[in-house]
Amino acid sequence: MTFDMSLVQRGARLRRSPFFEATQRHGARAYTVYNHMLFPICFADLEGEYRHLLEHVTLWDVSVERQVEITGPDAARFADFLTPRDLARCEVGQGMYVLITAADGGILNDPVLLRLAENHFWLSLADSDVLLWARGLALKSGLRVSLGEPDVSPLQIQGPKAKEVVRALFGDRALNLRYYRFFETTLDGIPLVVTRTGWTGEMGYELYLRDAARGDELWERVMAAGRAHRIRPTGPCDIRRVEAGILNFGADMTPADNPYEVGLGHLVDERKSADYVGRESLARVRAAGAKRKLAGIEIEGTRLEFNAARWPTAAGGAAVGHVTSAIWSPRLEKNIGYAMLPVAQAAPGTELRVQLPGGEERRAKVVAMPFIDPGKEIPKA
Amino acid sequence: MTFDMSLVQRGARLRRSPFFEATQRHGARAYTVYNHMLFPICFADLEGEYRHLLEHVTLWDVSVERQVEITGPDAARFADFLTPRDLARCEVGQGMYVLITAADGGILNDPVLLRLAENHFWLSLADSDVLLWARGLALKSGLRVSLGEPDVSPLQIQGPKAKEVVRALFGDRALNLRYYRFFETTLDGIPLVVTRTGWTGEMGYELYLRDAARGDELWERVMAAGRAHRIRPTGPCDIRRVEAGILNFGADMTPADNPYEVGLGHLVDERKSADYVGRESLARVRAAGAKRKLAGIEIEGTRLEFNAARWPTAAGGAAVGHVTSAIWSPRLEKNIGYAMLPVAQAAPGTELRVQLPGGEERRAKVVAMPFIDPGKEIPKA
Repeated sequence: MTFDMSLVQRGARLRRSPFFEATQRHGARAYTVYNHMLFPICFADLEGEYRHLLEHVTLWDVSVERQVEITGPDAARFADFLTPRDLARCEVGQGMYVLITAADGGILNDPVLLRLAENHFWLSLADSDVLLWARGLALKSGLRVSLGEPDVSPLQIQGPKAKEVVRALFGDRALNLRYYRFFETTLDGIPLVVTRTGWTGEMGYELYLRDAARGDELWERVMAAGRAHRIRPTGPCDIRRVEAGILNFGADMTPADNPYEVGLGHLVDERKSADYVGRESLARVRAAGAKRKLAGIEIEGTRLEFNAARWPTAAGGAAVGHVTSAIWSPRLEKNIGYAMLPVAQAAPGTELRVQLPGGEERRAKVVAMPFIDPGKEIPKA
Repeated sequence: MTFDMSLVQRGARLRRSPFFEATQRHGARAYTVYNHMLFPICFADLEGEYRHLLEHVTLWDVSVERQVEITGPDAARFADFLTPRDLARCEVGQGMYVLITAADGGILNDPVLLRLAENHFWLSLADSDVLLWARGLALKSGLRVSLGEPDVSPLQIQGPKAKEVVRALFGDRALNLRYYRFFETTLDGIPLVVTRTGWTGEMGYELYLRDAARGDELWERVMAAGRAHRIRPTGPCDIRRVEAGILNFGADMTPADNPYEVGLGHLVDERKSADYVGRESLARVRAAGAKRKLAGIEIEGTRLEFNAARWPTAAGGAAVGHVTSAIWSPRLEKNIGYAMLPVAQAAPGTELRVQLPGGEERRAKVVAMPFIDPGKEIPKA
């Protein structure tokens, strides 16, 4: 089924990235919508983009990762109130992968948090309006805090040659950057924050552009610096991120799931002293043990297309859960993915049946994750 | 530019409507994304769908209008706290078009609110996560309130023959329904709320399906009842809604705009006694007068495609604002739309220049709205 771009973008409701013109010029073939913005998701063929990410270096427009900016005299207290991670341990110049949790412990988003100053934070969002959540919370909190969406638009440079590209752009300073650290700089006068982060399972960086008017210029500057290393634009690489065990908010974790259920219990700091939303619920889950678990699975048979909806799973003849992500790994030559299952059915070796669209049923089994370790340089979070 | 549906829907992140299979079977040609769901926006040609809406009756899958359900002993107080409209005047069985406002008076959403019981409300949302806003507000409010997204998915039946279709389905009860009133019922056992509402400027109804498992059945039941009246599925009709002066959240009004600026000051009830978010800011705007205004405009020249981004406008050689929506009206044989302008430039007759993509400039002028009155039976809100 094919259709016109002009139909997906009807009217001015959906926002465009500062890199939109560049992605058009460089041949984006498809866009989806993320945080009310058009999000380029494919430039060539998806498996070609995957191989390029593994061998060379890729440029990915992730300006849809909108930022929630938290400032004001109580910004640190407020940021700490939003997440089960202990921000007392987050230095200025440091980032952290955090979960935003609701009072019931459900996951509302999984941003990268950057601490730009003692009382200055950005949350680089997955697809939900956390700015509304934060504004709602702040209103009766009694805290002196300002919240907004700043003019900030990230780009990812990912893959084994990413280091060469950022060295060409920023010199050794970028090479020495530890994982989840960042620095503020300019490139030909373009204001940027450079972070050692990504969503690929490969090594990489993000450039947070701080002036939308200069998006096109930044894009071409990065492309020029990467030419010698065969840089090319891509969309998100779901094959690689599933191989690495990375979760996609909205599919693999949702507000109906808590951190313990999706294997992100290490992002709940038990020793955190500050209060935060979800604290009591999460303590209860921890004490009682999670009842469900997101498990790695392998699905037998020929190459499956990436699942466009949840697939029901059964064990021992009874319906027990659903597949959240499933995709063909060309390196493993297997269909791999995740299923949300009752704990009793989530142990490696458990045999499952997966119901595909159209009625086909496939044998599957629970396996350990990740399927392929991220590079040694990339710690878990 | 054409591309594959399979690329827009990568993975299970985007949710599907209970009518998704039906829309596929009935030939949906394109989908956009709205409230994290796939939203069918075209089945044939857009002008054909417009003419069908004017002359016959249309069926439109608006299950993307997700509901925020408010229940609990303090539900009425909490709902009243969310909006500048006075819900003390909203009876059980009545709906209201309301604005959800932030503390600064900005518009966060413009849902239809339904009061199902003294302490039971639905907000039928435009595209923003108001559930997160409400949950954030509720947490420290001290009010005993439950918030959630129920299993509710609306369909719109719109056009001059809509009455015949709902009479065939529900009998005279539907015919006697006043505007913004509703009743609860079942159709072949399918649980529904039937409302006299719509987003077309034509007369019409919405069926709020309360059991997603029966979406396909409901769709075919409505199609069968409408066959004699030439019912056909369509997407949103932007031509008709602009002719009628209806605004689209995210394009014509955003969190950066307050109700007075977009001509919705009548949705701020000055005599409302209950407190609500934005009360003080809106009182200040009312006292000082809005500085900007969303004005009707006509743009000269040949047929324009619906604007996919904001177009800059100038008056007297100076940049003064931007076009939010602009579309060709086949009945008026003119390009019509809205522009957000400083009050000094917003009076009918003001001459403007509009900058189109690609560099073309067109003459335009401010005119009174609506361009074509909604049917007599449809009051302003």
